[in-house]
Amino acid sequence: MVVCNFERMEDKIKTFSGFGDTGKGGITRFSLSPEALAARLEFKKRMEVIGATVVTDDMANMYATIPGTEDLPAILSGSHLDSVRQGGNYDGVLGVLTAMEAVETIVSEHIPHRHPIAVVVWTNEEGARFEPAMMSSGVICGKFNKDDMLASVAKDMPEAYTFGEALEASGFKGEEANRLSTEKYLALVELHIEQGPVLEAEGYDIGIVEGVCGMINYEFTFSGQAGHAGTTPMKYRKDALYAAVKAIQYLHDELDQLDSKLVYTTGKMSCHPNIHTIIPDEVKFTLDARHQDPEVIKQVLTIINNIPPMIEKCMVSYAEAWSRKTVSFTPELVDFVEKSAKEFGYSIKRMYSGPGHDAQFVIDVLPTTMIFVPSIGGHSHSEIEFTPTENCLKGANVLLKTLLYIDQK
Amino acid sequence: MVVCNFERMEDKIKTFSGFGDTGKGGITRFSLSPEALAARLEFKKRMEVIGATVVTDDMANMYATIPGTEDLPAILSGSHLDSVRQGGNYDGVLGVLTAMEAVETIVSEHIPHRHPIAVVVWTNEEGARFEPAMMSSGVICGKFNKDDMLASVAKDMPEAYTFGEALEASGFKGEEANRLSTEKYLALVELHIEQGPVLEAEGYDIGIVEGVCGMINYEFTFSGQAGHAGTTPMKYRKDALYAAVKAIQYLHDELDQLDSKLVYTTGKMSCHPNIHTIIPDEVKFTLDARHQDPEVIKQVLTIINNIPPMIEKCMVSYAEAWSRKTVSFTPELVDFVEKSAKEFGYSIKRMYSGPGHDAQFVIDVLPTTMIFVPSIGGHSHSEIEFTPTENCLKGANVLLKTLLYIDQK
Repeated sequence: MVVCNFERMEDKIKTFSGFGDTGKGGITRFSLSPEALAARLEFKKRMEVIGATVVTDDMANMYATIPGTEDLPAILSGSHLDSVRQGGNYDGVLGVLTAMEAVETIVSEHIPHRHPIAVVVWTNEEGARFEPAMMSSGVICGKFNKDDMLASVAKDMPEAYTFGEALEASGFKGEEANRLSTEKYLALVELHIEQGPVLEAEGYDIGIVEGVCGMINYEFTFSGQAGHAGTTPMKYRKDALYAAVKAIQYLHDELDQLDSKLVYTTGKMSCHPNIHTIIPDEVKFTLDARHQDPEVIKQVLTIINNIPPMIEKCMVSYAEAWSRKTVSFTPELVDFVEKSAKEFGYSIKRMYSGPGHDAQFVIDVLPTTMIFVPSIGGHSHSEIEFTPTENCLKGANVLLKTLLYIDQK
Repeated sequence: MVVCNFERMEDKIKTFSGFGDTGKGGITRFSLSPEALAARLEFKKRMEVIGATVVTDDMANMYATIPGTEDLPAILSGSHLDSVRQGGNYDGVLGVLTAMEAVETIVSEHIPHRHPIAVVVWTNEEGARFEPAMMSSGVICGKFNKDDMLASVAKDMPEAYTFGEALEASGFKGEEANRLSTEKYLALVELHIEQGPVLEAEGYDIGIVEGVCGMINYEFTFSGQAGHAGTTPMKYRKDALYAAVKAIQYLHDELDQLDSKLVYTTGKMSCHPNIHTIIPDEVKFTLDARHQDPEVIKQVLTIINNIPPMIEKCMVSYAEAWSRKTVSFTPELVDFVEKSAKEFGYSIKRMYSGPGHDAQFVIDVLPTTMIFVPSIGGHSHSEIEFTPTENCLKGANVLLKTLLYIDQK
């Protein structure tokens, strides 16, 4: 059985880790930054060396395609090259590098394939400098308004510098005609690190991704009464922080009764006025909850709606910040990934993605699925993000085999 | 029985509320600011009009003294004219204004008195621009090192501007020989608003202040593990915010068993990285606890020391930020205040002060006590701080009578 090449895989990881290297084990490589443009040029150069034709669309998404033996739509694989601030060397980029390695293996091993095979680089998946995340796959898949996206202002620039300006200056803006479409493309397979601890902790090589979990994000507000720490007897207090503490405990008590695959997080909290000698008068926290089954998300909403309107004499209010419905990937492709992994003898786990990925937008246009490889310690969006090259190679092998299954379909 | 004058009291409150008026019902009058210097000049002018001699010491504390019939040390009353940012028209200044009104009544009514009677204005009680609070009473009572205080840098100035520079520029810096001393002064009575809700809520006119509560302030830290909200199963989490929630509940459960006069506050909280999609890895909160009885404070410490070292798989640590021992005022003077209030038929409550006051430093030098008047709604350090002039006048009457009791002793 043909497999990808360890040394080439390692070289790719090492080379691309140099673009935006923080010197502390990770990268800062915002979309369309000089570091990201250098990574794009390296991608273009390497793909052209193995015979690919590289085009970009009007959102600077890159498509590097090697021809097939027949005039058919291309099979697509890839991910993104941009990172968050002080991110790691695997999130996104590994999906591009394994796709490159799969195509390079096809070329070097002269593996016959009817369809063209293409590697895609999505622009601005992280939304770290220009919000929102998954911006450019979102535009071409009809999720976001393009003009709104072009007007998105860089978070780190003192002057208003827009995504549109960065796009014009990048040298990577191409034709709208080059966008992903069903005429030109057959299917997408995106490989990504898990970004969670499950595969490593449970000893699996490959995650068979069935979809992306639905999620809800709520913000809770507790309104009390400020007062001096030294003068207000306990019985007169309306302590908004204590009300929030009771609410978080309520949420844990109730949500822990639901399906064990539910994940929920109270990640952000603010306390006003946040002075050690003043009783807090306004406390807010966020609740993020994710599950693949919409019924479970409904149960979460019931629990939220059952929160008492007054806790510890403080007013309780809450509002949905945003939500996302569960996305299910194409079952036939999911099965191809599983079949491929099993042929290599890799241990597998069927799972849903918690985080969002470009693939969840592409599913609205093309048959789509994803492959996960383990994240050591579950670390992601962090300089200590790590996946051993052995695991990356296993992912590349599964990706290669899956592309060939799709080709033979 | 001679009483103070309502119209004069109201005029004083109204006039001094104009110095640093925010236009929103309160004042911003940092110590030694132009607004505070204007208030000092008004104080000086009014005291000289009624025959007082005004001197300042080397920390710009002001002493305005009317002579007595004998060559004796002066009886002192007063408080401070500075405020926090967007503070109220009563905290501090009312102690100066009631002392002025008591002296003005003595003068206008020709009330005989053996001792000189003086009104003191302490410099920088709030520490709102130059830390720490109670700076100048602290220096002259031996609590703070003078050179350190002169080097204190303004919090709101872009360039390093020190308290020492502000003092030199103020025109109010006087001689060290003018400082408070037992040769020159007999006793201090400081009137202040309660800054809490008890007197109003329970329908009392006057608080007989027996002392200032001891307090401790601790900072707790909870160290967990960051992780992605969408990828980390609940069983793998080390959620520092949930650990902090459990700890706050533990503190409430345990501290609520102690004496009902104990007040404790978790007023300040930080959550890292404070992103809605990331499990918090470090959460800190402060605990402020106050009680007049050192035994109760000891019980609080036992409860703190019994907190589990691990909560929800997160490391728990804590450290004392600072503490203050209970200060007891001079019992004879406390009794004089009570006797005075009762003679006017005012309802009284014996109580301890939660907040700190200059008087707690002066007690180390002179016999000292305090008088509290109600704060409507318990509001303080706020533009909505309010005490009706009727209540202020009751306080001035009690102060006047107390000064005369001390004089007759």
